[in-house]
Amino acid sequence: MTINHQIRLAARPVGLPKRNDWSFTEEPVKQPGAKEVLVKVLYLSLDPAMRGWMNEGRSYIKPVALGDVMRAGAAGKVIASNLPQFAVGDYVTGGFGVQEYAISDGKDIVKVDPRVAPLPVFLGTLGMPGMTAYFGLLDIGQPKEGETVVVSGAAGAVGTVVGQIAKIRGCRAIGIAGGQDKCRWIVDELGFDAAIDYKHEEVGAALKRHCAKGVDVYFDNVGGDILDAVLARLARNARVIICGAISQYNTTAPVKGPGNYLSLLVNRAMMKGMVVFDYADRYHLAAREMAGWMAQGKLKARTDVSVGLENFPEALLKLFKGENTGKLVLKVADDAQGNAA
Amino acid sequence: MTINHQIRLAARPVGLPKRNDWSFTEEPVKQPGAKEVLVKVLYLSLDPAMRGWMNEGRSYIKPVALGDVMRAGAAGKVIASNLPQFAVGDYVTGGFGVQEYAISDGKDIVKVDPRVAPLPVFLGTLGMPGMTAYFGLLDIGQPKEGETVVVSGAAGAVGTVVGQIAKIRGCRAIGIAGGQDKCRWIVDELGFDAAIDYKHEEVGAALKRHCAKGVDVYFDNVGGDILDAVLARLARNARVIICGAISQYNTTAPVKGPGNYLSLLVNRAMMKGMVVFDYADRYHLAAREMAGWMAQGKLKARTDVSVGLENFPEALLKLFKGENTGKLVLKVADDAQGNAA
Repeated sequence: MTINHQIRLAARPVGLPKRNDWSFTEEPVKQPGAKEVLVKVLYLSLDPAMRGWMNEGRSYIKPVALGDVMRAGAAGKVIASNLPQFAVGDYVTGGFGVQEYAISDGKDIVKVDPRVAPLPVFLGTLGMPGMTAYFGLLDIGQPKEGETVVVSGAAGAVGTVVGQIAKIRGCRAIGIAGGQDKCRWIVDELGFDAAIDYKHEEVGAALKRHCAKGVDVYFDNVGGDILDAVLARLARNARVIICGAISQYNTTAPVKGPGNYLSLLVNRAMMKGMVVFDYADRYHLAAREMAGWMAQGKLKARTDVSVGLENFPEALLKLFKGENTGKLVLKVADDAQGNAA
Repeated sequence: MTINHQIRLAARPVGLPKRNDWSFTEEPVKQPGAKEVLVKVLYLSLDPAMRGWMNEGRSYIKPVALGDVMRAGAAGKVIASNLPQFAVGDYVTGGFGVQEYAISDGKDIVKVDPRVAPLPVFLGTLGMPGMTAYFGLLDIGQPKEGETVVVSGAAGAVGTVVGQIAKIRGCRAIGIAGGQDKCRWIVDELGFDAAIDYKHEEVGAALKRHCAKGVDVYFDNVGGDILDAVLARLARNARVIICGAISQYNTTAPVKGPGNYLSLLVNRAMMKGMVVFDYADRYHLAAREMAGWMAQGKLKARTDVSVGLENFPEALLKLFKGENTGKLVLKVADDAQGNAA
């Protein structure tokens, strides 16, 4: 009998999630019913948004209920199938949760081709973070050639893609990230025009230096003081995409609103929130275009891999401590052992 | 020799402008040069934006320099003209400043017809505040029939027009204003569907009651806590027009940013700043449409008149204390005495 180890939400965290906000459970792996498949999870996607799903209250998606397996995107392999469209051995992504095995009715899972990219890339550049970057930047930001695009969280799963697409579209790309290594990497490897190390330089002064004519498009993943610093440097008719606010997700104080929001008035600028799910009917188009860019070497993906389901609580915190470079995933199992169930 | 009394900016105010932030000067009325007209000012427009013009620093318009006559919109009468397009006796509006007489090259002044509306209405509903309401609501807010439009500063020069246009366009109009009299007036006289008295009720709870399906369009004149309360009640795909932030203009503390701005994300909502000057090439179209609505009794204008140039410092403060209902103007001279120069 194979055991499915699971991590469940035990308590609503106050501030950074602690180990005892989770419970660790196990149960026998279930067999798929009629019109179901059984998936062995190989990689879990660790995303800043998960912190929001742990809170009570109205949001763009229902909170994870206490006692439920924690919601998570994941990539895995079909190991038993009662659905004609999925065969044993198929690789798939879906919301499988923080566990080793998942049953699915096949509705919200997607077959992926590991010859196109390594499996974790389908959780990053070719997955939700990539879609978020693509539609947020292009649909809301509408960058024009020669414009200056600034992105925060620039070394993260979304930010890396935003900056690279900005370059592909002929814009100047300025990334804000924490630490010299990340900053060097996004410039030297990803082709950003400049990076601002918010841990070691004053963001406002650096923006003034790098964006002499102001910021035309700002893709915000972090909120807080960095959002405020960029607002103060907006160009006329700027567009600000509110994708997330990782600096605020674990504060126990009230969320810090952007005190410089009246820059929107002075500059006739626009600030708009986005939720990637709204673009689901166009994911396939974006994925095709981005896979093309990857094949041409114009869009590079980097995965930051932690290992072991049991390390999920600590691995998740890397996001909030700024310790990941590129897309953070948690490797749950080796592919070679994939047929054990 | 006729004397021109003037009020000049003497110091940059900290908080509410005080009487000694102004200097009172006088000089002989100048005669217009070639291609100039001389205007006798009858009414000064008192606008919240004037507080911003008194501050140093980059904004959508240059600050008033220390020692300069305070900038102000005004309505007056041409009393001498060396320009063929203006005759003595013509009524005009323009940026004549806080003084009794102004020389103009005719470029930024507009002839108005007092048979269409009383002169002060060309400083309100048919002037900048009306244009601000019209283009902010219709161009940025794009309200659709049946949607819920909320406006703050609802009994002011801009807010009254926003709510009435919302009604004309088949929307529900909810106004936020301070005090029972204003609230009763915008509902009973102007036809708003409901009013929220922010001085005597909790705005969030009242919004929940009046906007069960959320707020589709919010026209913000005030900023601060009221902006935050409305953000918390946005409907999916809401539009927020940032027109002003009168609650913040005189604070000596840093501007309070909207802590609930992440509601933009949850609700895929948009917040955009506006400056009315951008719509100058379409003012005449808006004025024509609004004059039509006024003639049909669908759009009502109310003027709140203070009297006497020397009372300008105190009259201006009425705006920031919420003491005006409708468009606040300062009557500087009687029309009957209009030919003295």
